[in-house]
Amino acid sequence: MAGDKLFLYWGSGSIPCWKAMLVLEEKGFHGYKNKLCSFQKKEHKTDEILALNPRGQLPTFKDGDIVVNESNAIMEYLEATYSDQGLKLLPADPAGKAQVFQVVNELSNLQTTLNTNYVYYKFHTPKDKYDVDLLKERAEKCRTELAFWEARLKKAGPNTFAAGSTFTLADCAFFPYVAFAKRVGLQLEKWAAIEAYYKKIVERASVKATWPPHWTENPEGDKSILGDI
Amino acid sequence: MAGDKLFLYWGSGSIPCWKAMLVLEEKGFHGYKNKLCSFQKKEHKTDEILALNPRGQLPTFKDGDIVVNESNAIMEYLEATYSDQGLKLLPADPAGKAQVFQVVNELSNLQTTLNTNYVYYKFHTPKDKYDVDLLKERAEKCRTELAFWEARLKKAGPNTFAAGSTFTLADCAFFPYVAFAKRVGLQLEKWAAIEAYYKKIVERASVKATWPPHWTENPEGDKSILGDI
Repeated sequence: MAGDKLFLYWGSGSIPCWKAMLVLEEKGFHGYKNKLCSFQKKEHKTDEILALNPRGQLPTFKDGDIVVNESNAIMEYLEATYSDQGLKLLPADPAGKAQVFQVVNELSNLQTTLNTNYVYYKFHTPKDKYDVDLLKERAEKCRTELAFWEARLKKAGPNTFAAGSTFTLADCAFFPYVAFAKRVGLQLEKWAAIEAYYKKIVERASVKATWPPHWTENPEGDKSILGDI
Repeated sequence: MAGDKLFLYWGSGSIPCWKAMLVLEEKGFHGYKNKLCSFQKKEHKTDEILALNPRGQLPTFKDGDIVVNESNAIMEYLEATYSDQGLKLLPADPAGKAQVFQVVNELSNLQTTLNTNYVYYKFHTPKDKYDVDLLKERAEKCRTELAFWEARLKKAGPNTFAAGSTFTLADCAFFPYVAFAKRVGLQLEKWAAIEAYYKKIVERASVKATWPPHWTENPEGDKSILGDI
């Protein structure tokens, strides 16, 4: 079985790792070999991983002798290589593909605006050192960014997914962002279409199989992080 | 002819636009419809573009009724939709695909480290307001980032491209970063493999056909920007 050759190094709660893991489940590779690495213990900087991924980042992924890093690359590699296995995660028609490619790549905006500039800033800055004006400006950008996604989902309607009428790579990429934002306090009830999307996707078997183990141990994240957005 | 339905909105010297334009040329769509927009005049924020691209970004792209934004998405869309036209820009074998997907996505590191955090910081900050310590720290990160690419190209050898033995989407994505860095002062002679790569790719017809018009008008960029890296 093809899945026997797959090996994923991952970290709990990492959005890029979760993206790859959702694809692996949806493609039917449940039970693939893997190693959970602790970011705290710097296990992503071991020689074992650096030999495969000079940046020392997770996810790091192997399919036999083929090494693929970068979460979007892993997602696309799996779909291209195993297109006929499990769920098809890329539509056959050009218009469908266009939407999926766009959403997968457009998520870099959500990553930068919400996570890099806001969530990680708060994670890494003592509260009494917050630059309040900067945070205010960035909070506004978070709202603008979320409004793009809310508008997209609203326009698409309640029966659609992140990019079209079927579950695709775009959902494997988008859902972890929403779940992470919710965990750190984003009030989904302010974003009706995003909330409806979350409620629909969170029920999938692939999501349950890949739920971050440390979220199960500690169900409550720090709600103050995005609680003011 | 398929090319008749294509329409690209672009800006001169924009790396994301250039990526899409290289793919269009390599796929044999020379002469496709397009509109050069001035960033200075905010022509990327017109109603015409906002109707297609709510973020008001370039490139904005249409293939008939199919709208695709985000440079990586445009590249992948064109290759997926017109795989048999012009040059094949994605290898058929899984290992080859893996490399291309990884390089295309890994370039976000080059974008953030060199362009967002260093070049644009310098573009947008008056010289007497430079945070010297911050710039020093970021300059070191630029060197580390460039070393990744230098090592990758060196390991691959002089006859290879950005991801493997043929010209692919990875080259359409990587070359504009190198050309832009050179224009704003990166001393390519410090990075022998990157310099050799530049000299090889700059001769391609697709590069000549897409050279940023304002670079032709003003051949010299501000060499002080990356001159200290």
